[in-house]
Amino acid sequence: MPQTRRYIDHHCHGIVDADLTRPQLEALMAEAHLPAPDGCTQFDKPLGLLVRRYCAPVLGLDPFASPEDYVARRTELGGREASRRLMQGAGMTELLIDTGHRSDTILDVPQMAEITGCATQEVIRIEAVMEAAAKQAGSAEELVSLFAEMMEAFARDAVALKSIVAYRVTFDIDQTRPDAGAVVKAAGDWLAALEAGESRRLDNAVLIRHALFMALDICVERDFPLQLHTAVGDLDIDMPKCDPTVFVPFIKQAEAMKVPLTLLHCYPFVQQATWLAEVFQNVYFDVGFTLNFTGPQAIRTMEQAMEMGPFFKQLYSSDAFGLAELHYLGRIQFERMMDKVMGQWLADGDITLKEADRIIDMITHGNAARIYRLTE
Amino acid sequence: MPQTRRYIDHHCHGIVDADLTRPQLEALMAEAHLPAPDGCTQFDKPLGLLVRRYCAPVLGLDPFASPEDYVARRTELGGREASRRLMQGAGMTELLIDTGHRSDTILDVPQMAEITGCATQEVIRIEAVMEAAAKQAGSAEELVSLFAEMMEAFARDAVALKSIVAYRVTFDIDQTRPDAGAVVKAAGDWLAALEAGESRRLDNAVLIRHALFMALDICVERDFPLQLHTAVGDLDIDMPKCDPTVFVPFIKQAEAMKVPLTLLHCYPFVQQATWLAEVFQNVYFDVGFTLNFTGPQAIRTMEQAMEMGPFFKQLYSSDAFGLAELHYLGRIQFERMMDKVMGQWLADGDITLKEADRIIDMITHGNAARIYRLTE
Amino acid sequence: MPQTRRYIDHHCHGIVDADLTRPQLEALMAEAHLPAPDGCTQFDKPLGLLVRRYCAPVLGLDPFASPEDYVARRTELGGREASRRLMQGAGMTELLIDTGHRSDTILDVPQMAEITGCATQEVIRIEAVMEAAAKQAGSAEELVSLFAEMMEAFARDAVALKSIVAYRVTFDIDQTRPDAGAVVKAAGDWLAALEAGESRRLDNAVLIRHALFMALDICVERDFPLQLHTAVGDLDIDMPKCDPTVFVPFIKQAEAMKVPLTLLHCYPFVQQATWLAEVFQNVYFDVGFTLNFTGPQAIRTMEQAMEMGPFFKQLYSSDAFGLAELHYLGRIQFERMMDKVMGQWLADGDITLKEADRIIDMITHGNAARIYRLTE
Repeated sequence: MPQTRRYIDHHCHGIVDADLTRPQLEALMAEAHLPAPDGCTQFDKPLGLLVRRYCAPVLGLDPFASPEDYVARRTELGGREASRRLMQGAGMTELLIDTGHRSDTILDVPQMAEITGCATQEVIRIEAVMEAAAKQAGSAEELVSLFAEMMEAFARDAVALKSIVAYRVTFDIDQTRPDAGAVVKAAGDWLAALEAGESRRLDNAVLIRHALFMALDICVERDFPLQLHTAVGDLDIDMPKCDPTVFVPFIKQAEAMKVPLTLLHCYPFVQQATWLAEVFQNVYFDVGFTLNFTGPQAIRTMEQAMEMGPFFKQLYSSDAFGLAELHYLGRIQFERMMDKVMGQWLADGDITLKEADRIIDMITHGNAARIYRLTE
Repeated sequence: MPQTRRYIDHHCHGIVDADLTRPQLEALMAEAHLPAPDGCTQFDKPLGLLVRRYCAPVLGLDPFASPEDYVARRTELGGREASRRLMQGAGMTELLIDTGHRSDTILDVPQMAEITGCATQEVIRIEAVMEAAAKQAGSAEELVSLFAEMMEAFARDAVALKSIVAYRVTFDIDQTRPDAGAVVKAAGDWLAALEAGESRRLDNAVLIRHALFMALDICVERDFPLQLHTAVGDLDIDMPKCDPTVFVPFIKQAEAMKVPLTLLHCYPFVQQATWLAEVFQNVYFDVGFTLNFTGPQAIRTMEQAMEMGPFFKQLYSSDAFGLAELHYLGRIQFERMMDKVMGQWLADGDITLKEADRIIDMITHGNAARIYRLTE
Repeated sequence: MPQTRRYIDHHCHGIVDADLTRPQLEALMAEAHLPAPDGCTQFDKPLGLLVRRYCAPVLGLDPFASPEDYVARRTELGGREASRRLMQGAGMTELLIDTGHRSDTILDVPQMAEITGCATQEVIRIEAVMEAAAKQAGSAEELVSLFAEMMEAFARDAVALKSIVAYRVTFDIDQTRPDAGAVVKAAGDWLAALEAGESRRLDNAVLIRHALFMALDICVERDFPLQLHTAVGDLDIDMPKCDPTVFVPFIKQAEAMKVPLTLLHCYPFVQQATWLAEVFQNVYFDVGFTLNFTGPQAIRTMEQAMEMGPFFKQLYSSDAFGLAELHYLGRIQFERMMDKVMGQWLADGDITLKEADRIIDMITHGNAARIYRLTE
């Protein structure tokens, strides 16, 4: 496939462009909060093989360079230059960047534009807005009004909102809009918990529900999507309750308001996500994170994404965070796995080359351009 | 494989033989209750590719005819003639038809026999019987007695009963037989709700449990199976609670009564269904619906059906509703996916051709003939 | 692959070396508690094909010998000789044997060493220890102290402990350490239930929690793993509650204590298990049982095990119980499925032959030798 195909990474994060020690690099290669057991390395897993095969040559090494050589070469080039090579090698056209996670440790949106040469757009994480509001609010009422103001203000320059409700309180919650009184009470409770050091981040279900429904209102007003973290993540994920089918009552309300919802990652509930995309007019999905972390076997996840999912509902993302390697591999993995699926369909006579090309256009940029309203 | 193999479609529905507009056709190609988003079409999904590849030639078009040409040609032939060609192309020997879903809009059992040239048999949906009884009942007691009479009467000419308990109240319910007093009380409550316009269809868990256990009694008496809708469906499905392993307490009671249960569709819980078929003497399964809706990738579902499932437990179905296309594609998809699986097993040396043929006989008709007691 | 690779079966059971009738043989080929339906046979399922293809030649028959011939030949050789051939054909180096299941009907650890010629080690099932203690205890207090003494004593000669908490009370329980008072009370309640004939085996959640946390203490002391039965099993399994992600609160506590947990079988939650292995430093997994019972299609399970799972976290097991056939097939299935996966990765250029060999070494023995501290 030509490098010139338009590619919109509709969900990714900034990177670290500093030099990285091997422990720092390995930490960014894992969802684990502790290092690999003694004597083991994160290079000995599917993602590690991908880094050695595909990223090593970008840094001027042979494929399958040893982890030692990889880290040494990355340091020799400098984190900045290594990252620049990888980011530009990814060949993205546009990046939609979630700025709500550890944003003090990674490049911001203009810096990402500079290092990649891509058009960049911001996606606002609603829980981060509430946390920012809480830092300034002197009372429950002020938190509520400040949050509303900040949401409006941030949304003006963004192309979408995002929620990590699944991380904080799971999808297994009351999915109705809370009334104003309950919201103020919850705001007071949470501010008190923050003050007492009992809470570090937003984990109050009433406040998150308030944020979600305000997000829907803003999405209606601005005619753009709400992204939802779904399933796979780190140790904070209570997996059975992060199955996207648990969130159907909310999905129905968003559908009635005509707000597109984009389900991110979805593993190991990819089949469930594609079923939702079949049933609900407003449900979109990607398998971004999964393609990198399942390495050579990512073909099976890509196949699941193509099982029941309408072609006008799938999106491309890398979900890369921290490492330019993950941006680069996201593109590599998507392209080679999609080529494998389409190659099989062609061999089976299930599609024509022209149709395959059209479907890949839809998934790499057409669907994202439509729902995020991105003109070329 | 020869067209002459006996094929029993143990679970399907009637079709519409009227002319269809493009929106009507697309609506019947989807589990969605709303159309595809503006600018999108149900032809741009796996099932859509199948229709264009396989059904277009049956109507005299080239494979991969455009959606516009497909609809135009279908109209030109007339819905009746298009349907006749597709139904006869499916080459079924016998159809077991569930008549309980939107039966006023589709061909009935004799009409299906006429258009297909197949032997046809009826499967009675127990929730539909209860709803029919409610239309005539003047009191709770009358509803209960009328339901019993109608179940007995309908069962006499049927080859099985079917429940959509998963749709109405999920499998996550009390799975014991309710006592007579509770049933009469529930009947009164539901009749009142119907009268008040608060209920449109049977969604009272006590009444459904009553219907399920009466169904088991009748299945014992008539020595035939109870079919259970399982998992994949439209927006009314609460997916995690429609996992068939949630229904084990009921399954155990049916096993003790020696009533075969046939789990229909099963996606995305096919592995769970085959595990139940391994563990319980009375559990059977199909992946009917799934093969059409997962299009070119249906191979993975067929592989799952063949992973742990005993060969004497799998059944063939199309689960086709409304469109003759779905009957035709059900056969195409089953045959080519089963051929792929068996072809791989042969290539690996895991089976002999003779054994493969014997296994396909079991799944296409042997198992169904045995449990539904259908003589050739 | 050479027969000389070191192979540690980290989870298996003893076998029956007596002559077996066909019903006895078929019963040991199934997770079902009842025989196959009339006219059906356990040979007509994926495992049955494996027995006919692979085990028949070990007994001197042609591949795909009929079930009748297989049983006749097995009887002719005698159960002892047939078992000896199959066990030695499996070519294991070391067996870690769970002795807590129907141990009166199968060979014990020294007998398994004798028939296989392998080094053998014992794994202690904590629920069986509690049940043994209950047989001797005259009071609740005595049960508690006897259990502690027996755990210490048994652990001295073992290489790991094992829990079947998933079978008895599922993972969906309070996952905190119960206090001493609650334990004594629960011990009294259970002894009374035993005496009254209301309980046959340990199914008291408080006592099982007590056993689990005592197991963690012993694992810390002896620096060895705790094995956890996970998911697939017989009719006692409440599947959705045996998803290993339901047990995360316990996993976190074990991680803080640096106790390796090995998740056994995992089907149909293999993806969930590998995600836990990615996230938690102490989580290991195998797909032992699954490879035999999914027969020719076991490739898909092996692929899932290699999707997200770090290579330093996967273990080999047969989970064989009762039949020497299952020990033999465990090795056959692992080896051919792993070869298939690695062959595909090599063909795709995703790995080098040297790396593939190193990864197989980790999974067949390296990881087990490390966590069970088995010197060669």
